[in-house]
Amino acid sequence: MPRPRHEPNGVAPDVFTTGDGAKGAHIQEVLATLVQQSRDGSLLPSERVLAERFGVARMTVRGAIDELEARGMVRRVSGRGTFVQRPTLTHSEIFRSFSQDMRNRGMTPGSRSYRARTRPATRDIAERLGVDVGAPVHSIERVRTADGTPMALERTNLPAARFGTLLDVMNRDQSLYDVLARVFGVRLESAEQTVSIARLSPAEARRLEVPGYDPAFLVERRALDTMGNVVEFGRSLYRGDRYAIEMHVSRPAGG
Amino acid sequence: MPRPRHEPNGVAPDVFTTGDGAKGAHIQEVLATLVQQSRDGSLLPSERVLAERFGVARMTVRGAIDELEARGMVRRVSGRGTFVQRPTLTHSEIFRSFSQDMRNRGMTPGSRSYRARTRPATRDIAERLGVDVGAPVHSIERVRTADGTPMALERTNLPAARFGTLLDVMNRDQSLYDVLARVFGVRLESAEQTVSIARLSPAEARRLEVPGYDPAFLVERRALDTMGNVVEFGRSLYRGDRYAIEMHVSRPAGG
Repeated sequence: MPRPRHEPNGVAPDVFTTGDGAKGAHIQEVLATLVQQSRDGSLLPSERVLAERFGVARMTVRGAIDELEARGMVRRVSGRGTFVQRPTLTHSEIFRSFSQDMRNRGMTPGSRSYRARTRPATRDIAERLGVDVGAPVHSIERVRTADGTPMALERTNLPAARFGTLLDVMNRDQSLYDVLARVFGVRLESAEQTVSIARLSPAEARRLEVPGYDPAFLVERRALDTMGNVVEFGRSLYRGDRYAIEMHVSRPAGG
Repeated sequence: MPRPRHEPNGVAPDVFTTGDGAKGAHIQEVLATLVQQSRDGSLLPSERVLAERFGVARMTVRGAIDELEARGMVRRVSGRGTFVQRPTLTHSEIFRSFSQDMRNRGMTPGSRSYRARTRPATRDIAERLGVDVGAPVHSIERVRTADGTPMALERTNLPAARFGTLLDVMNRDQSLYDVLARVFGVRLESAEQTVSIARLSPAEARRLEVPGYDPAFLVERRALDTMGNVVEFGRSLYRGDRYAIEMHVSRPAGG
């Protein structure tokens, strides 16, 4: 089985020959690697060109592209070709609100289906916020959009004792962090986040306009103010096809 | 529709009443939240108990649990009940090798299907490592295990000019970072990581012993030594059902 080294377009697939003898599986791995190395929106070579390059039948290439499409790595556009689909929004460890984040990327932040209410803290929320079980908590949920496209389902909780009038001054399109700063003089300083992969329920997927059970980043965030008090605790969902997370990793001091 | 507040077991679901009138969807959301708030391996109340608690038919509860199972959040064990399934291994921003990481958790690190070879750098790898296109690069791939269970498919690349004898001294079960320190006197100091969600190809899924197209964390990592030289660049896959990422988020200095 030929293993391509230097491709005409300079993007040589970086894969191991799998050795399982299945040409289709091999082509799929090679194409997957090529896609991982390409920018979002890049056009793949045509099926005919790929078939010639790898010395396989067009059917084999088509099958491999079907697989990449099933994995959400490419999308076929009728009459135009197959395009690379990669996450383009990155969530970094710099503390920014969704609104700031979108504006920094030149996109217009927006919100949909805003729901806010005050209710007694469950044990889970009470522990995370450091309040008594049953103490009043403001809960806010909304779908965040960028240029009108739903990106995240944000869910957060704040202690009502500290932010009594929050739900009166907050509205659908406002940045929560702006309101906290402007009305309550609170500046968020740091947050502990745990990020896992969740599959969206059909209802969540509908609100994010993706297929049911699509994977998403589930971000559990506990944010603290400059005094070290817990300001909010939330569990938000970020579309897995649009987000990536950037992180800087370093040795512990003295480690 | 009744919305439970304080559950007998003290774990009250924290959800919004969806208002779409579909009892099944509502129960599913409530159960999903309950599961998110529970530890890995917790036993869910029985279908009968849940049906009574929510005032719905057992069939409705069963359908909701089917959905949670499809989302990989619970697993049914015949004759024993339904158990919460959560990621238990966390990948933190502290720089540790896979081997160190597993030992810190009291698990035994291992490896399978080790493949190593030297080959010319593709444009992509050359750019990431800061070497010329075509310069020799050591490529290492292996499945990492914890107590015998496959956890990650590690793939990395190092400049051969600097680490000439690496493939002679490295073997399947060794920690790459230990070898780099011991043989080459290299200490990794920091890394830039980009984490996205990938769906595993059938071949990758087989090696990780999960169903095909299951979501995984795709971690692109570029690691630097204490002098700021790039030591390795790799793209590894971590099982989405076992890993979570912990990160500390803070304001930029002066921000």
